[in-house]
Amino acid sequence: MSSDRTNWNIKSSRTAKQAHNPIRAIVDQLKLDPNATKPLISLSIGDPTIFGNFNVDPSINQAVSKQLNSYRSNGYPPADGTLQARTAIAKEYSTPEAPLAPSDVILANGCSGALEMCVNVLCNEGSNILIPRPGFSLYASLAATRFPEKSWEADLAHLESLIDEKTSAILVNNPSNPCGSVYSREHLQAILAVAERHHVPIISDEIYCDLVFDGHTFFPMATLTSTVPILAVGGLAKKWLVPGWRVGWIMIHDRNRIFSEINDGLHQLAQIILGPNSLIQAAIPDILENTPASFFEATIQQLQDNVNLSIDRVSKIDGLVPVNPQGAMYMMVGIQTEKFNDIENDVQFSAKLLAEENVVCLPGECFNYPNYVRFVITPTIDRLEEAYKRMDEFCARHRK
Amino acid sequence: MSSDRTNWNIKSSRTAKQAHNPIRAIVDQLKLDPNATKPLISLSIGDPTIFGNFNVDPSINQAVSKQLNSYRSNGYPPADGTLQARTAIAKEYSTPEAPLAPSDVILANGCSGALEMCVNVLCNEGSNILIPRPGFSLYASLAATRFPEKSWEADLAHLESLIDEKTSAILVNNPSNPCGSVYSREHLQAILAVAERHHVPIISDEIYCDLVFDGHTFFPMATLTSTVPILAVGGLAKKWLVPGWRVGWIMIHDRNRIFSEINDGLHQLAQIILGPNSLIQAAIPDILENTPASFFEATIQQLQDNVNLSIDRVSKIDGLVPVNPQGAMYMMVGIQTEKFNDIENDVQFSAKLLAEENVVCLPGECFNYPNYVRFVITPTIDRLEEAYKRMDEFCARHRK
Ligand SMILES: Cc1ncc(COP(=O)(O)O)c(C=O)c1O
Ligand SMILES: Cc1ncc(COP(=O)(O)O)c(C=O)c1O
Repeated sequence: MSSDRTNWNIKSSRTAKQAHNPIRAIVDQLKLDPNATKPLISLSIGDPTIFGNFNVDPSINQAVSKQLNSYRSNGYPPADGTLQARTAIAKEYSTPEAPLAPSDVILANGCSGALEMCVNVLCNEGSNILIPRPGFSLYASLAATRFPEKSWEADLAHLESLIDEKTSAILVNNPSNPCGSVYSREHLQAILAVAERHHVPIISDEIYCDLVFDGHTFFPMATLTSTVPILAVGGLAKKWLVPGWRVGWIMIHDRNRIFSEINDGLHQLAQIILGPNSLIQAAIPDILENTPASFFEATIQQLQDNVNLSIDRVSKIDGLVPVNPQGAMYMMVGIQTEKFNDIENDVQFSAKLLAEENVVCLPGECFNYPNYVRFVITPTIDRLEEAYKRMDEFCARHRK
Repeated sequence: MSSDRTNWNIKSSRTAKQAHNPIRAIVDQLKLDPNATKPLISLSIGDPTIFGNFNVDPSINQAVSKQLNSYRSNGYPPADGTLQARTAIAKEYSTPEAPLAPSDVILANGCSGALEMCVNVLCNEGSNILIPRPGFSLYASLAATRFPEKSWEADLAHLESLIDEKTSAILVNNPSNPCGSVYSREHLQAILAVAERHHVPIISDEIYCDLVFDGHTFFPMATLTSTVPILAVGGLAKKWLVPGWRVGWIMIHDRNRIFSEINDGLHQLAQIILGPNSLIQAAIPDILENTPASFFEATIQQLQDNVNLSIDRVSKIDGLVPVNPQGAMYMMVGIQTEKFNDIENDVQFSAKLLAEENVVCLPGECFNYPNYVRFVITPTIDRLEEAYKRMDEFCARHRK
């Protein structure tokens, strides 16, 4: 048997073609102006570390230094993560209602890697998965590689109406990107009831767990059910302010042995790329044990201050309607397009704001949520002040 | 529309079921004896760092420390890797015959992650890929997740006979695991001629590049062709002795723009899990520039000493036939089963050697190559001496 190819004609796979990041095509419409006179202010990058005001705690660096200097943490960790790291994570996230053993934890390359594994283990070609709308763009990218996604807003009737026999999972993101919503116990229980009724497992993206503002409480999904099997994912990226370190994990909550195949499957998948960096894995017990409470308090306080400022300033701009975030690092802002002369939608808003004011924000289209824009609220206070001042002038100029 | 499921019946996906590591099932037949009197000697783990005799160079640790202490390398790197890291890698591996620009390099989670991306971008369901036999077990795992693999020995007529219109790539591993072979220029050119004739691109796994013993020369595949498009993969794991750090890369050699879709596709795929740890990425320019030549020389010298000892000792054991490795970190040893009473194959050899002598080695079955066993030759000299002494007694006991 032989090939009949007479020339080079190499096409990329369907997977690669579909693995596009939906943000990219939209963001490509936003053009930076190299001759801009005002300095660039980015409210678009979900990375709190780039402005210099959210820094890792020195104790975390010490934990990594210790491993580096030990010359003993450079070898291959087990594919599902070192026992020490898995033990520390199980201990940190175990609750009486949802106990975790070290064997329930699998390390991954960032929460992104954890999500990819969850989707890969649960979904076949042709299955679908219910993802939130607005939602983190990776959900749609992952969905695109394997199956049709279906979007749901926080509307339970809508959610339930979308479930069919091919539905492999309901993906819940709490606290959420881009909305900053923190779901109440009742709302989570209602989602669980739908999952239970239809026997659909849940993937719970809890990467922003504990990044919750005054008056709100984060409930880990798994603590609210004893019957629905849950893959909860998390990581160091947000709470410990080290997104570049690429350390995430899956916590398998399966008290009724519904997930035995899934458990095996996740361990198989872990063999392929062998988890995150060994130095950081080795440092995880110290990191989870020794990061002072004051570090987390300072993070929340700073986020809260930035939210307060953002709400105050943006709500004074006629034509913009901020949605008060309850957690995470983002604020959604509605655009009352009817109030403007020449701003028809969120993509136009973002493009013109960038062209005229050199301020970047992401159009809601990126999250499947038109006529909103997302502001990252982690820049320094003076940068935020300046951004909102420019936005005020911008809106005044374009208002009817 | 609604699901009719009346109970929990959650199956893992086909991908997860097929992503098994073929080594696992075989190794599960080897049982450690907790009551063994002799201390365990492992010749099975391809991780040079675990015995204490192959350590990272202090300059490499300093490069990482510098980044850790800068508090400036904790954020998300670009999905395809930082420009600095890509520039350093392009510079290190560029040759006049096969020049590389920073944009030809994509960072990945280990060479494993790089291989996964190469396979994912080139192969659709139903395509096949030609992988070497004996070969590194990940090739078969990756193949299993997506398509039928076809194995070829270093036999070009056989290789050519296996190509059909569904063949997406020929995977070449040089220097090779498990054989330790280092291909001659002529052999590589002959493989390239086959690829050229059939218009099949090459994935060249060069993770052991430069780990080559006296009298042999490593030729990067891409330097020997100006027409065949090549994805070459490498990483820090072996040459810099940090397999746990999980840093690999893809180098796209495509002088005739045959790979434009593949290039795009790889960048799309990189968006999913966002590459390796940011601290190490930031340290890569220093690591590639400042690691002293003496470090690499010492590594090779130690490997060479261990090979010499291994060949000497094993060739004196009647019934075992060592294959002289030319590079990498392994030695294949043939088992003359006809000389033994009760050792019928490589799996039995490994199982009995473990049970009776507490020495672990991998049966050739793991690499699709029965009646050989693979010894890792990185343990300390005294451990190797002791292992071969026990093997000698073991063989004597079982010989006819
Ligand atoms: C909701 C959500 N999940 C997961 C991630 C990815 O986390 P990681 O950086 O650990 O891959 C992000 C990153 O912004 C996110 O917003
Ligand atoms: C031939 C070959 N390729 C790739 C790898 C994986 O390299 P990494 O640890 O960078 O994923 C190995 C590891 O042993 C190997 O032997």
